[in-house]
Amino acid sequence: MKTADRRQQLKDALVSAAERAIEAGGLSGVKARPLAAEGGCAVGAIYNAVADLDDLILAVNSRTLAALEGELNAAGSTGKAKRPPGPIDRLVSMGLAYLRFAASHTLRWRALFEHRAPPGKGLPQWYLEDQMRLFAYVEEALRELQPRYSAERRALLARSLFSAVHGVVMLGLEEKLQAIPPEVLREQVTFIVTSICRSMQPSR
Amino acid sequence: MKTADRRQQLKDALVSAAERAIEAGGLSGVKARPLAAEGGCAVGAIYNAVADLDDLILAVNSRTLAALEGELNAAGSTGKAKRPPGPIDRLVSMGLAYLRFAASHTLRWRALFEHRAPPGKGLPQWYLEDQMRLFAYVEEALRELQPRYSAERRALLARSLFSAVHGVVMLGLEEKLQAIPPEVLREQVTFIVTSICRSMQPSR
Repeated sequence: MKTADRRQQLKDALVSAAERAIEAGGLSGVKARPLAAEGGCAVGAIYNAVADLDDLILAVNSRTLAALEGELNAAGSTGKAKRPPGPIDRLVSMGLAYLRFAASHTLRWRALFEHRAPPGKGLPQWYLEDQMRLFAYVEEALRELQPRYSAERRALLARSLFSAVHGVVMLGLEEKLQAIPPEVLREQVTFIVTSICRSMQPSR
Repeated sequence: MKTADRRQQLKDALVSAAERAIEAGGLSGVKARPLAAEGGCAVGAIYNAVADLDDLILAVNSRTLAALEGELNAAGSTGKAKRPPGPIDRLVSMGLAYLRFAASHTLRWRALFEHRAPPGKGLPQWYLEDQMRLFAYVEEALRELQPRYSAERRALLARSLFSAVHGVVMLGLEEKLQAIPPEVLREQVTFIVTSICRSMQPSR
C-alpha cells in the first residue's frame, strides 16, 4: 500500500474513533492516547494523519453535518407526491427533523456548537462550506414563500429561522429551565417556524 | 467577628473572585488554587465557605441572572410615559436588551448555559427560581397581548419566545456561521420577536 493510502486509512480510523469518543462522552472524550490505542498506532503517529486533535474534531463534525444535511434535505424535499407540500409545511418538517436529529445524536450534535477553533486559527473554508450547504433547502423553500426577496435577504432569513429553531431545540433538550415533554417541544418548533414563515408571506 | 459572618465574608470574596475568573477566561478559569490566592485563604478553606466549585459557579450565575433580570425588566417596563409602549414594542425592547447584555458580558452570559450540574445532582430549587423570575416581565407583556391564554400556555410561549431569541443571539455572537454586523443582529432579533408576537395577537 502506498504511504498516502496508509495515511488516509489511518485518518479514517482515527476519525471513526473520535466520533465514537464524542458519542460516548462529548468533546472532552477526544484524547490522543485512547485514540491511538483504538486506531492501532503510536500516539505520535496521529500527527502523521492529522495536523492536531482540532482537525480530527472538525472531520467528525463534518460527518455530523453531512448526516444532518441528509435528514434536512429528506424532510424538506417536495418528494413525488401529486400535491407536493407547500413551503411552510416543508420548513416545519425540516424544523422537526432538526429536533429529531438533535434528540437522537445529542452529543455529536452538541459538538458542532461546542467546538471552537483555537484563537487565531479560524475555521477552514471547506468546513464553512459544509455549514452553508445546510441552508440550501431552507433557502429554496423561502424563495418559494417569498420570491421577491433578494438572495442576500433570503440567506439572512434562513439563518434567523435556523437560529430560532436551534434555540428552542437547544434549551428544550438541555432541560435547563425545566423538563419539556417531547410532544410539547415538537409543538414549540412548529409554532416558531409557522409564525416566522407567515410573517414573510406576502399579505393577501 | 462571628464564625458565620467570617464564612459569609469569605464566600462573598470567593464568588467575586470566581466572577472575575469567568469574565477573564470562561468556566474553565474557575480553579481552586488561584481562587484561594485571591480570596486570601488556604485551598482547603474554600470548602468551609462553599460545598464545591460547582456551588461557587452557581452563585456567580445567580448574580449574572440578577443583573440580566434588571436589564430585561428596565427594557420591558411601561415606564411613566403618557402613552406607554404596547406589549410587542416592550417585548422587542427586552429582546434587544438581552442581545446587549450577551454582547457586553459574553463570558459571564455563556457560563449560564455552559455550566451543567454534575450527574445525579440537579440544580437547586433557589437557582431554578432565579431563572424563572427572568420570565415574569415577558409573561406580563404576553398577557396583555393575548389575555385569553391560560397561565400555563403563556408560560410556554414565554419560553418559546425566549429560546428563539436566545438562538439568534447565541449563533450571532458565536460567529459560527459567518460574521454578523451588530445592526443586522438587532434587526434579526426585532424580526423574530415581532413575527412570533404577531402570530399570538388576536386577529382583527
